[in-house]
Amino acid sequence: MRVLITAFEAFAGSPVNPSEQVVNAMQQAGLSGQQLFTSVLPVDAHTAPQILSDAIEASSPHIVIALGEAANRPVISIERAALNILDFRIPDNEGNTITDQPILPGGPAAYFSTLPVRAILKRLQASGIPAELSYSAGAYLCNMVFYLLMDWASRQPQPVQAGFIHLPSLPEQAAARGNSGPSMSLETSLQAIRAAIECAIEQHAQNGG
Amino acid sequence: MRVLITAFEAFAGSPVNPSEQVVNAMQQAGLSGQQLFTSVLPVDAHTAPQILSDAIEASSPHIVIALGEAANRPVISIERAALNILDFRIPDNEGNTITDQPILPGGPAAYFSTLPVRAILKRLQASGIPAELSYSAGAYLCNMVFYLLMDWASRQPQPVQAGFIHLPSLPEQAAARGNSGPSMSLETSLQAIRAAIECAIEQHAQNGG
Amino acid sequence: MRVLITAFEAFAGSPVNPSEQVVNAMQQAGLSGQQLFTSVLPVDAHTAPQILSDAIEASSPHIVIALGEAANRPVISIERAALNILDFRIPDNEGNTITDQPILPGGPAAYFSTLPVRAILKRLQASGIPAELSYSAGAYLCNMVFYLLMDWASRQPQPVQAGFIHLPSLPEQAAARGNSGPSMSLETSLQAIRAAIECAIEQHAQNGG
Amino acid sequence: MRVLITAFEAFAGSPVNPSEQVVNAMQQAGLSGQQLFTSVLPVDAHTAPQILSDAIEASSPHIVIALGEAANRPVISIERAALNILDFRIPDNEGNTITDQPILPGGPAAYFSTLPVRAILKRLQASGIPAELSYSAGAYLCNMVFYLLMDWASRQPQPVQAGFIHLPSLPEQAAARGNSGPSMSLETSLQAIRAAIECAIEQHAQNGG
Repeated sequence: MRVLITAFEAFAGSPVNPSEQVVNAMQQAGLSGQQLFTSVLPVDAHTAPQILSDAIEASSPHIVIALGEAANRPVISIERAALNILDFRIPDNEGNTITDQPILPGGPAAYFSTLPVRAILKRLQASGIPAELSYSAGAYLCNMVFYLLMDWASRQPQPVQAGFIHLPSLPEQAAARGNSGPSMSLETSLQAIRAAIECAIEQHAQNGG
Repeated sequence: MRVLITAFEAFAGSPVNPSEQVVNAMQQAGLSGQQLFTSVLPVDAHTAPQILSDAIEASSPHIVIALGEAANRPVISIERAALNILDFRIPDNEGNTITDQPILPGGPAAYFSTLPVRAILKRLQASGIPAELSYSAGAYLCNMVFYLLMDWASRQPQPVQAGFIHLPSLPEQAAARGNSGPSMSLETSLQAIRAAIECAIEQHAQNGG
Repeated sequence: MRVLITAFEAFAGSPVNPSEQVVNAMQQAGLSGQQLFTSVLPVDAHTAPQILSDAIEASSPHIVIALGEAANRPVISIERAALNILDFRIPDNEGNTITDQPILPGGPAAYFSTLPVRAILKRLQASGIPAELSYSAGAYLCNMVFYLLMDWASRQPQPVQAGFIHLPSLPEQAAARGNSGPSMSLETSLQAIRAAIECAIEQHAQNGG
Repeated sequence: MRVLITAFEAFAGSPVNPSEQVVNAMQQAGLSGQQLFTSVLPVDAHTAPQILSDAIEASSPHIVIALGEAANRPVISIERAALNILDFRIPDNEGNTITDQPILPGGPAAYFSTLPVRAILKRLQASGIPAELSYSAGAYLCNMVFYLLMDWASRQPQPVQAGFIHLPSLPEQAAARGNSGPSMSLETSLQAIRAAIECAIEQHAQNGG
């Protein structure tokens, strides 16, 4: 099976992004028995869509999990839905601040994740990894990539397991901010994403995918 | 140098306590060049004081760091002061609920930590470990042990570096609670306490201790 | 202009609901120069849809603002989108716990509010009322009523200004919970909803509605 | 009975301070059957002590409640203890940033409030006002004034009911910050302080004061 995992580069003044570190660690270790593809997307509303699209085209994936960082969340957030809206509270890395615009004019208001989100939640919690189902991926680059991913998935002839998972900041990021914010170790986040991929593979297999 | 690290047993329905796991890990690994003593205290207002006292007597320590768990805090909390008050929001493990009582009737209202708390904070943050100075250790067993420890230290002929550090819950505890609460990995908490001990040893040496 | 404001009855063990109190206060005071209709909906997934539908039919409204309580939010939450999902963390008042079901099978994944949410936000903040735009109305009764309301609005021949606003708990509710949770006075919430209605009326007039 | 209520002027960029507004409202309305004295202290570590001292000398009070603002707290915080430490995270209004200094060198580590804090908590909660007992008044001007007040009280021949209560920000302050922070209406905070004064008067009478 072909599995694509995407991440984001660092943004908002932090030198690192936990999603990029998770993807790099997975890239190094590989995915036993599966073909793993990874892509680190720019935090740039104008170029991220094309780079996502290229990564999808290059991998022709059965499963796609897009990752991003949610700096104020203490647990793994398994996102349920992407909204067709852009509303940036901070500029992206190229200085774009987009407010109250649709991602795809005329597109549906939202797409639901096609990952087995409930199964992933249960798997993570059973593995001792703090996690939650989330009903909002925000209105920044993460939600944008999530929406575009699901829009692509909706146009595929075969069902694709696709969705988005937010990771907490790394401990070193929280330490650098010095503001008592939450964090999660790279090891725990990596373990979470490995478990999520396993769930997606199992469901894909069950669906005869 | 003789270093005593204390922890607490599990409480409040959780099967584990991060402080106990840190102490057990340190006990196994030892402390290079120093004599390490450890003690796991009961979450019992009636017996904890004696067991603390025994641990102190058995080790005759130059440095004491007492550890406990603060389930709702996302970062390492380096406590500055212990208050002479008991005010339990939940019963201890023996069912005692003590409200608005002094720990030591007639004792001073508070003791300050004699650990180099500012140096520890800087060391942790420089090491990428999220940490804060805290002005309240609560009014439960943690604060009680902290107060009794400092009361002992105040009566020693030689200065003792003594104090209290609160650890976040472990990821598996947060996962079991299922409520999106914060956590910190055992590795990060262990690294924090090792760094705190180093700071205390350095200061003790500087003081000609 | 005909304006319909809906609220919810008390739930989750609290004897009151701020939305019901706001609606009752508005009902008593009336809405200068407009026809005001109000309805207090049951926290019951099986009967709330019909009672909402009846209220809409009885008032044939140009503007509808549905209100509900968000107990853990400290500010007025102007909701942007309703998702087609039911996922209850607590049972409703009739004991129904619905998990991972659509509100309307085959319905769109989401509807956006057609209230002038950005203008309402600015109006509230300029009036000294703490407020935010929210990207999730949850997956309980509030989101259900919001979704059904927008589904109705989407089928009207003329544009309807419709949407949902979450209110914080009242101070007496937070006091009864005894858990340091946030609250907002009835007066502030009432002032907020009056300002929101004004914004909606102004936009409706501008749209030639 | 002579009752002194102190407040602080605005600080940290906000044009108002809820404590000042509470004190002004009380000054206007008076205190039935009692002599009310009020003082608004500067947020200046160098001059606040003398102005507090002057206000105490001018009123020779039986009861003193010092008030301040805690911007991130959603409920009335009835403080239990003042610590002998200054550790400013932001400069005061005169630009002083004091770190890790005692308020009174050689003074006791802490003083406990002599207000009937438990009775006040119960009175407020019974009145529907969200409140909590707090074990830390911070390490800024509020804690400084609290400590100096209790130091004065400790030297009086007759017991004085004295202590500190933190108020949440006003709604207009939270709105101006635009960051979803908690707030409490002036009316609720005013009602809280009136109830606290009543409790203190009752206890003072019971003590034969």
